[in-house]
Amino acid sequence: MVLSETAASIKSMEIRGAGRIARAAVEALADYAANLDASDPDTFKQEMRKAADILTETRPTAVSLPNAVRSVMRALDSFDSVEAARDAVLARAAEFVEHSEHAVERIAAIGARHISDGDVLLTHCNSEAALGCILEAHRQGKDIEVYATEVRPRGQGLITIRTLNDAGIRTNYIVDSAVRYFINDVDLVVVGADAIAVNGAVVNKIGTAQIAHAAHEARTNVIVAAETYKFAPRTILGELIEIEERDTAEVLPREVAEKLPFVRVRNPTFDVTPAEYVDLIVTEQGAIPPGLAFTVIRDYLGWKIEELR
Amino acid sequence: MVLSETAASIKSMEIRGAGRIARAAVEALADYAANLDASDPDTFKQEMRKAADILTETRPTAVSLPNAVRSVMRALDSFDSVEAARDAVLARAAEFVEHSEHAVERIAAIGARHISDGDVLLTHCNSEAALGCILEAHRQGKDIEVYATEVRPRGQGLITIRTLNDAGIRTNYIVDSAVRYFINDVDLVVVGADAIAVNGAVVNKIGTAQIAHAAHEARTNVIVAAETYKFAPRTILGELIEIEERDTAEVLPREVAEKLPFVRVRNPTFDVTPAEYVDLIVTEQGAIPPGLAFTVIRDYLGWKIEELR
Amino acid sequence: MVLSETAASIKSMEIRGAGRIARAAVEALADYAANLDASDPDTFKQEMRKAADILTETRPTAVSLPNAVRSVMRALDSFDSVEAARDAVLARAAEFVEHSEHAVERIAAIGARHISDGDVLLTHCNSEAALGCILEAHRQGKDIEVYATEVRPRGQGLITIRTLNDAGIRTNYIVDSAVRYFINDVDLVVVGADAIAVNGAVVNKIGTAQIAHAAHEARTNVIVAAETYKFAPRTILGELIEIEERDTAEVLPREVAEKLPFVRVRNPTFDVTPAEYVDLIVTEQGAIPPGLAFTVIRDYLGWKIEELR
Amino acid sequence: MVLSETAASIKSMEIRGAGRIARAAVEALADYAANLDASDPDTFKQEMRKAADILTETRPTAVSLPNAVRSVMRALDSFDSVEAARDAVLARAAEFVEHSEHAVERIAAIGARHISDGDVLLTHCNSEAALGCILEAHRQGKDIEVYATEVRPRGQGLITIRTLNDAGIRTNYIVDSAVRYFINDVDLVVVGADAIAVNGAVVNKIGTAQIAHAAHEARTNVIVAAETYKFAPRTILGELIEIEERDTAEVLPREVAEKLPFVRVRNPTFDVTPAEYVDLIVTEQGAIPPGLAFTVIRDYLGWKIEELR
Amino acid sequence: MVLSETAASIKSMEIRGAGRIARAAVEALADYAANLDASDPDTFKQEMRKAADILTETRPTAVSLPNAVRSVMRALDSFDSVEAARDAVLARAAEFVEHSEHAVERIAAIGARHISDGDVLLTHCNSEAALGCILEAHRQGKDIEVYATEVRPRGQGLITIRTLNDAGIRTNYIVDSAVRYFINDVDLVVVGADAIAVNGAVVNKIGTAQIAHAAHEARTNVIVAAETYKFAPRTILGELIEIEERDTAEVLPREVAEKLPFVRVRNPTFDVTPAEYVDLIVTEQGAIPPGLAFTVIRDYLGWKIEELR
Amino acid sequence: MVLSETAASIKSMEIRGAGRIARAAVEALADYAANLDASDPDTFKQEMRKAADILTETRPTAVSLPNAVRSVMRALDSFDSVEAARDAVLARAAEFVEHSEHAVERIAAIGARHISDGDVLLTHCNSEAALGCILEAHRQGKDIEVYATEVRPRGQGLITIRTLNDAGIRTNYIVDSAVRYFINDVDLVVVGADAIAVNGAVVNKIGTAQIAHAAHEARTNVIVAAETYKFAPRTILGELIEIEERDTAEVLPREVAEKLPFVRVRNPTFDVTPAEYVDLIVTEQGAIPPGLAFTVIRDYLGWKIEELR
Repeated sequence: MVLSETAASIKSMEIRGAGRIARAAVEALADYAANLDASDPDTFKQEMRKAADILTETRPTAVSLPNAVRSVMRALDSFDSVEAARDAVLARAAEFVEHSEHAVERIAAIGARHISDGDVLLTHCNSEAALGCILEAHRQGKDIEVYATEVRPRGQGLITIRTLNDAGIRTNYIVDSAVRYFINDVDLVVVGADAIAVNGAVVNKIGTAQIAHAAHEARTNVIVAAETYKFAPRTILGELIEIEERDTAEVLPREVAEKLPFVRVRNPTFDVTPAEYVDLIVTEQGAIPPGLAFTVIRDYLGWKIEELR
Repeated sequence: MVLSETAASIKSMEIRGAGRIARAAVEALADYAANLDASDPDTFKQEMRKAADILTETRPTAVSLPNAVRSVMRALDSFDSVEAARDAVLARAAEFVEHSEHAVERIAAIGARHISDGDVLLTHCNSEAALGCILEAHRQGKDIEVYATEVRPRGQGLITIRTLNDAGIRTNYIVDSAVRYFINDVDLVVVGADAIAVNGAVVNKIGTAQIAHAAHEARTNVIVAAETYKFAPRTILGELIEIEERDTAEVLPREVAEKLPFVRVRNPTFDVTPAEYVDLIVTEQGAIPPGLAFTVIRDYLGWKIEELR
Repeated sequence: MVLSETAASIKSMEIRGAGRIARAAVEALADYAANLDASDPDTFKQEMRKAADILTETRPTAVSLPNAVRSVMRALDSFDSVEAARDAVLARAAEFVEHSEHAVERIAAIGARHISDGDVLLTHCNSEAALGCILEAHRQGKDIEVYATEVRPRGQGLITIRTLNDAGIRTNYIVDSAVRYFINDVDLVVVGADAIAVNGAVVNKIGTAQIAHAAHEARTNVIVAAETYKFAPRTILGELIEIEERDTAEVLPREVAEKLPFVRVRNPTFDVTPAEYVDLIVTEQGAIPPGLAFTVIRDYLGWKIEELR
Repeated sequence: MVLSETAASIKSMEIRGAGRIARAAVEALADYAANLDASDPDTFKQEMRKAADILTETRPTAVSLPNAVRSVMRALDSFDSVEAARDAVLARAAEFVEHSEHAVERIAAIGARHISDGDVLLTHCNSEAALGCILEAHRQGKDIEVYATEVRPRGQGLITIRTLNDAGIRTNYIVDSAVRYFINDVDLVVVGADAIAVNGAVVNKIGTAQIAHAAHEARTNVIVAAETYKFAPRTILGELIEIEERDTAEVLPREVAEKLPFVRVRNPTFDVTPAEYVDLIVTEQGAIPPGLAFTVIRDYLGWKIEELR
Repeated sequence: MVLSETAASIKSMEIRGAGRIARAAVEALADYAANLDASDPDTFKQEMRKAADILTETRPTAVSLPNAVRSVMRALDSFDSVEAARDAVLARAAEFVEHSEHAVERIAAIGARHISDGDVLLTHCNSEAALGCILEAHRQGKDIEVYATEVRPRGQGLITIRTLNDAGIRTNYIVDSAVRYFINDVDLVVVGADAIAVNGAVVNKIGTAQIAHAAHEARTNVIVAAETYKFAPRTILGELIEIEERDTAEVLPREVAEKLPFVRVRNPTFDVTPAEYVDLIVTEQGAIPPGLAFTVIRDYLGWKIEELR
Repeated sequence: MVLSETAASIKSMEIRGAGRIARAAVEALADYAANLDASDPDTFKQEMRKAADILTETRPTAVSLPNAVRSVMRALDSFDSVEAARDAVLARAAEFVEHSEHAVERIAAIGARHISDGDVLLTHCNSEAALGCILEAHRQGKDIEVYATEVRPRGQGLITIRTLNDAGIRTNYIVDSAVRYFINDVDLVVVGADAIAVNGAVVNKIGTAQIAHAAHEARTNVIVAAETYKFAPRTILGELIEIEERDTAEVLPREVAEKLPFVRVRNPTFDVTPAEYVDLIVTEQGAIPPGLAFTVIRDYLGWKIEELR
């Protein structure tokens, strides 16, 4: 797929999901590099930068997109020949795609080490990475039990309990507001993330912050499973961050809402869990305390402190 | 209605609701006293005690029942004549019924004083007493706005927002797990109670503890509106108390659940909010800090310290 | 001084200070009772109640006034004769005045027990009762040192350090915002109170809450010295209570303020210290934890739970 | 100005203020380098080091001085020629001065992003960087309101409210001990810093720690605005750090103090706010959580872990 | 045993243990009353008071002694005849002894209700009342496991594990400093008390406060088992209370200590656990939250608020 | 000593102690390198790696061993000749040994700066590094006093108080469970460490976590003195880490234990202190806040984020 097509597909949300977006962008860049005719390394670099900008601008709010693009572009240091520069780009792109494809697998392997035989876990929403850790622990023969929430308004909990049921893992299904009621029976909370900020705060499905807060009160550990391309050079001050609100009909059918003129339905998709309620972030690069988020952002994603806002 | 009929109606749950149960029992006792033929005050007292026991045993878990019965029976001190004893019982019963009928009204009047013009409130479930406070504040011309939760699994929030809408109060409707997201915009949480323990802990609809916990973190005050007959001489150690679990089909349709053999649905009706997360309990007798729960239990309901378990 | 004169003097603020107001009202009531001609005890009681109401209404915000009046009126139970009723009033009034006059002295004696040899104390504003404790400890030969704040805007700290200097007590004088800086050197905070609420919260000079908060952080104990007639049957929800703001010229000279049209000077006189930051309240009746505030309000001042709002 | 003159002017405090001291030292070094006649790069480096030491020793307690000098000296790596070394020094010096001159401007631009339309802010003392953020937010059309403290003993709050008034920003002026009283109305605290330690603790005007403590209790965010040359390789253990005390006459006129032999006036200039009470540090290089202080100290100022004490 | 003999035996510590001291004093008073020849009720009362004072003064630090004496003396209200007064004393004394003898048994019955099947408990020192609860739960067929500490320096833990072993209860024996290590495996801490203060603070064997602190951190509930005669009308300010230090040879043999002139052995017997770390106090009169300590002190022991110091 | 002998001596625990093990391994590697005959740098490197693996595998749980080996092996970058590679190894090894030998001395020098004249310290167990700081402060003429614990079950406190006594330092000797009792008299806790995890958590002698917890409650600072080779790339999630349990006879003589079939003695050697209870870690490289543990692990020990598990 040529660059402009990929850009269009990302923009139209035909390509969705943090991982898929990241890989598509990287592959488009690699493809572009492979076919790019340039007289000298500097021109090559300039042209690549234009391509990168086109991709980055397709969806300004997707965390994984600039991370992926930047990851490839960092390969473009000073080179003697166009060939060398092209090779560097292609190698880095291949590496990124390989890493990304195996990221969940690696997260599962690392995360499972933190799940002990006999543990009772709690998860929220339907995170591939978080479930990966749980399923891997089960595969290793650890006797585990899981609490899974309903996840209003879209009910992703149903998908989660189906996956857990199919794997033969004993699972308890509860409404979202029953978490604190059961938290004393839970040994470990395992959730995913949509984004991780420079101060280690975690943006994830609405309700996650409430769960982490209850876990913190009960001294239950909280693991967040997240690919490194979800780390973002944003400083979340306290917990205030602009969160997208989705279609209110997910919460209240429009025909009901229409008859209630004084009622406004609010449907925020995500909330922000402060770093102090998170014990460990499991990435495909290793397991880190939240305080090392910036190290990941700098060393793996190439952001600099000057870019922190 | 004669005593045995009332007892039967309470047992069969034909008579429901803390207030109605209490009043029915008291009226049955009054009726019984009015018609009781006894040779002397002691015999009168003995017979009354038997009647009281019959009523109390119909529903051992209803908090208001023993409170109501005991409230009437306390009138039976030492009397010179059967007539005097009977009169005392009848007077006390009338007083109880009158108090009970006006309790919500009085709670609303007291609670509304703690709601200021411009306040943003949050309520959970559908408590007559809590809504009473909110509606009364609105009636007094205070400009208020309310956040109301959905209250899974039974969705009582819908009734709540209808009531608030009908009163013309600006209301925001949110899923249960969005409370912490919005709590910084809230000035005051107002909820009801199913029971209040001797240490000031509050038993209420599942999710209340989570909300109070989030409010406590954000230094948002929490008011609990509760009639005194909901106070119970139970000591809730920490938060461990036997909580009834309801039909799991409320959470997950049976036909779905059947296909998920490893999944167990858990549906606790109530949770326990520790006293430290409650700022004020508004009763029809006055507004008290949770530390005075025992004073209400002793002075208004007649329980003694020896009965604390 | 006859009743109407006393009422006028309280209203005009000719009579000031919680203690003096209380004693004047009580003496006026006693004088009124002594001269009251009544046909029977009930009439006597009725007339007395009218007198009481006149006094209470002179200054609705003075905490000590209703306490003092109520204290005397409680003597008016059912009596056989006008003489007996009158005697009861006079006896109670005399007892109140005597108690009140010796209250600071008794508080000093009790409070001094909680000051150890070698202690470093911190006080704020200029409370007779708090200074009483400190001076008494010094008189007993305990080697103490005091930190005293400046107390902006009116600078009462200057009076305090003069008193301490005259007594020969080593004193450190600091600005109000230096309290947290020195708090680790302080063993005990001793302050007065303007009012104490039913939940043990303390209304006192602006800045007290900030000091108690810093003391709490540093595990430094806080003693509040307060006569029982400062206890009030008000429930302070959280810390929200209407606090009087004084003349802004105390903070910024009017001629400066006039030239700053966008600037508004705010000058609240008091703030509210939550009970959890107070370790002990020393009254002339004994030293109590804040949780017993209602016991004082009920047992010594005669307020009932029904009067809590 | 030649090196020795600059050194003398810094020593005599003729040159004052963290920024001005830093720039003067850097310019003196550049001037010295420009005129330094050396046979080889190593000799050049040695001579530069001597000059650097002369400057650094003029005021051992000024945080910005060693930072500025070190910043320039880091340019002196291994060079082939004296010319190259000199050029490197001059380039770095120019860059430092440029950065420093625009630092406040950049801080204001970054800080203003964290101020939302409708925010109520609180500031303490008279920090150019903190006020920069506020004024920039106002310039961007955000509707803001500010609480400014009096700042005893020197009253810098008056300068602050004048600046805010001139800009047409609604401002509330309060005594230092009223901060906790108003903190629930405040959305964001914005203050400056005199120094920032390796663990993210902030040294600033006396009273800042108390304000940050109150803000933390109320979950109000705290932003510290500080140029990077204020970061210092000191480890502040807990909060114990030697703080300079200024002239006591600022607090109490000498003629009053003289008559109070038992009274000692204490006048500490700064206090230390622990990192846990700070949400964000806005530097001209970017906005960081306090946990990244060492990264700034190492990456921008060139200190090594071996220099942490 | 006549009064003087009992007094001597208590003084010489021939009679030891809070319960035994209390009962001996009560029995001596009863015996004295039985044989006391008095012309009228007032004289009887006076003589009884003298006897009471003799007993109370034998061991000023024993909490149970004044409680026991006062309990009997409260029976001495106004009576018409010496006979009636004597009878009242004898009845009250008999009741006290009976209560006291059965107190541990009753505590065990109440306490056992708070131990659930499957619970892991932790106890410290060798408290008859605390062990009573544990043994009773075991007797009721609950499957429990216990952690017992060594209790340096006197090693009372050895007696405890022997008792638990004999009862067939699975027990883990650990050193005192391993409590925090294991606390996450513990469901409930059950300890005794030497005294309980008016604010609910608990004086018990050294190490108890540290255990309660660790339990509090881990949200593990703490039950204190204590007879009501251990409640004392002392206000413990914070945790500062004079604690007796025992023979240092318990910690370090004298022959070792002698050779270490710079070393001072400190051996405090008790420490003070603040009420906030205690969830429930189980007395023979009922189970109460610590906030009700004063109610027990007033209602069961007859102390008044005026006696709080 | 040739490599195989050293490996055997480490395995058999003939060589013990973190420092001695590290130095022995490094010297064995240096000796091996000195005598290694290799055709080219790559072969040299390969052979060295094999030798390194042999050493590392002798004691998988010793933290200092892999750190020491890795420290030397990092010198083996790409070299032109075997000679250059060998020299690099030998230089690095010599540097490591020199550093290690002087590490305690350097820690003492840095740590002593944080001890002020007049300080009361508390230490636990018998750490050479912690005692080094205390002795150095004493040598510098600071007037200090120390509390030292008994350290059950092995009683290392006795060695500690002997050392302190010999140095002429006033020392208080207390049982382990008396720490919270005395903590308010303590200005600074100084302890050693067996290992420090990537999140700054400290593994040390059982009881350390309890002491640090009590210190944290009392706002007493905690310094941990530890050589950098004790830092380990392990992420301790919460505090769950496999801790070795030693011979139970240290706690209870076997002949006593044998007669108690229901009793199981537990004897964990270490516990884990969370980073939030540690104020400063003093290493021979500098003094750092716990949040910089990963920086030490990466910059001084050469571990990468990918190795964090």
